[in-house]
Amino acid sequence: MRATVVIRPKTGILDPQGEAVQASLHKLGFPVTQARVGRVVDLELETDDVVEARAQLERMADELLANPLIESFEIEIEIEIEVERT
Amino acid sequence: MRATVVIRPKTGILDPQGEAVQASLHKLGFPVTQARVGRVVDLELETDDVVEARAQLERMADELLANPLIESFEIEIEIEIEVERT
Repeated sequence: MRATVVIRPKTGILDPQGEAVQASLHKLGFPVTQARVGRVVDLELETDDVVEARAQLERMADELLANPLIESFEIEIEIEIEVERT
Repeated sequence: MRATVVIRPKTGILDPQGEAVQASLHKLGFPVTQARVGRVVDLELETDDVVEARAQLERMADELLANPLIESFEIEIEIEIEVERT
């Protein structure tokens, strides 16, 4: 089962990487008033159970992928739906 | 206007950061067969024109945000729709 965890710096938390990106974009002539940089982690899980996958992903994000003090995360799970036409 | 550029390593391109994440998740007991790490850049643009925004975002990604040799990118634009109830 495929899933994605998107990790972003929390609102109000300094984001030096985002500031650098914004400054560089400005120098290149792009009118950007804010830039924030986060991470996206695409995962292939062994489980095919959505509830189990969700629980695993939350623990992964809490324990390793995100820093809960300064980052927030969102979980996306890819669900395949088989449609049978008769 | 808000927009997001999601940048991922292209299929087939080595992703040492993803491999490190997968190894660490395995050590923590999570059954993950693959992990790939990319970036997400949230931007606040001055323009309110969707076509103009899209053109700007493609150029930003090509010129600064992504490395076209090894990374692919997706653009998401947030559109606010006003609904008037009479």
